[in-house]
Amino acid sequence: MQQSYNPSRMIIIGGGVGPLAGVDLHRQIIELTETTGRDQDHLRVLHLSCSDMIPDRTEALLGGNPEGPALGMARILTAAEACCDRMFLQGYAAVPCNTFHAPAIWDRFQQALAEAGSRLQVLNMISITIDHIRTCYPGIRRIGIMSTTGTRKTGVYAGLLAEAGYETVQTDDQELLHEMIYNTSYGIKAVAPVSGEAMGIGRRILAELQDKGAEAVILGCTELPLALPESQYRGIPLINPVRLLALELIRSVRQ
Amino acid sequence: MQQSYNPSRMIIIGGGVGPLAGVDLHRQIIELTETTGRDQDHLRVLHLSCSDMIPDRTEALLGGNPEGPALGMARILTAAEACCDRMFLQGYAAVPCNTFHAPAIWDRFQQALAEAGSRLQVLNMISITIDHIRTCYPGIRRIGIMSTTGTRKTGVYAGLLAEAGYETVQTDDQELLHEMIYNTSYGIKAVAPVSGEAMGIGRRILAELQDKGAEAVILGCTELPLALPESQYRGIPLINPVRLLALELIRSVRQ
Repeated sequence: MQQSYNPSRMIIIGGGVGPLAGVDLHRQIIELTETTGRDQDHLRVLHLSCSDMIPDRTEALLGGNPEGPALGMARILTAAEACCDRMFLQGYAAVPCNTFHAPAIWDRFQQALAEAGSRLQVLNMISITIDHIRTCYPGIRRIGIMSTTGTRKTGVYAGLLAEAGYETVQTDDQELLHEMIYNTSYGIKAVAPVSGEAMGIGRRILAELQDKGAEAVILGCTELPLALPESQYRGIPLINPVRLLALELIRSVRQ
Repeated sequence: MQQSYNPSRMIIIGGGVGPLAGVDLHRQIIELTETTGRDQDHLRVLHLSCSDMIPDRTEALLGGNPEGPALGMARILTAAEACCDRMFLQGYAAVPCNTFHAPAIWDRFQQALAEAGSRLQVLNMISITIDHIRTCYPGIRRIGIMSTTGTRKTGVYAGLLAEAGYETVQTDDQELLHEMIYNTSYGIKAVAPVSGEAMGIGRRILAELQDKGAEAVILGCTELPLALPESQYRGIPLINPVRLLALELIRSVRQ
């Protein structure tokens, strides 16, 4: 069925962090949009990927310089807004990077947009993920988190989940989870299609989190859903924040 | 090895025709860019996908109204240029749609950009494909073309290849090739991953073109490489125009 949408709105992807995560979000927006099969039913998307303008988020946080990524992405999104203005469109923007949502980066980013006089609506992937869990799984109290070492050390999900009243559990073997993503011979970033070894590690960690009482698991790194594409594992929902972000962006421009 | 590139340039994808073809070009640009493994080594890409502004290209050509898609895409690219201007960047643009390159659309599109005072550099995917064949396979004289019925009827590749002095061959069963792409139960557009039936049809048509003397085959529809991902078939090179376009865009902004 063809969806109605508000033709004065445009989705903006603040991409490049990393570049393939932006492409994955873009693809999911297309695949999750209901159409009659015609190209013309698809939503407007401006995807601006300027990786060289955004320092590594984990290094910035651990090195005490969250301003670098915050200001870089604010500059990118204000440039995207110039394109929206030219088309008389309201932009609905999002950044598909978990670590970018660490409060030290995110809050400075929001401040920089405000200082630039931006009128963009910016969606927060982590808030959307937590709202989704609260709404769709109201009985859940303990949530497993899988993420890179950087996202874990900076407490992106753990902090906001604790504020929302959830208990969280993570793996005792973070090094192994990091290797699942980064190892140069079998990691998700290095090998396509995903190696059996990476998939095996993912399942072992899910079993561990289930043993620790996790009632849902957030795949808190944009690479993880490639190795764990299922929507659940032994009855536990696997939550893909990028997919939820795609759905929320679609809803935002349809209203 | 890290590549050098010109930081005052940006790649622009005139997307939405169709939306997934734009995403595929964007992904190939990322995957074909040599990096040291850091996000920051990647090139700047502005991908603007506004499918609703671009009428169906085949219908426009067969209905005698090539102006619709031409002016829609010109408007999109001038909006993208406003974003480049804001960032003080020179844009290098391309449109990953074979049918859009039919001279009736392409020439009007170029004219509209000139009328708008655009300073964009625009790359032509079909010219790049023919130049590639001439340079890399200098001995070849007869080229097979696989495309949608629309691209075939409008002679996008056949015309330019004939001008360049090549003989061309196409399938005697265009209806079957069309079904390989569009059939709602087994076609490439409908079924992911690609069905065995679609792959089988692709190989049958390649065999037919080889029998007719084709020394290379152009996969002249952005969907076809999904079913025929190999770089050759029984010694005949399979030419993927979107891949060549990705490589040429990378070269353009690296200079």
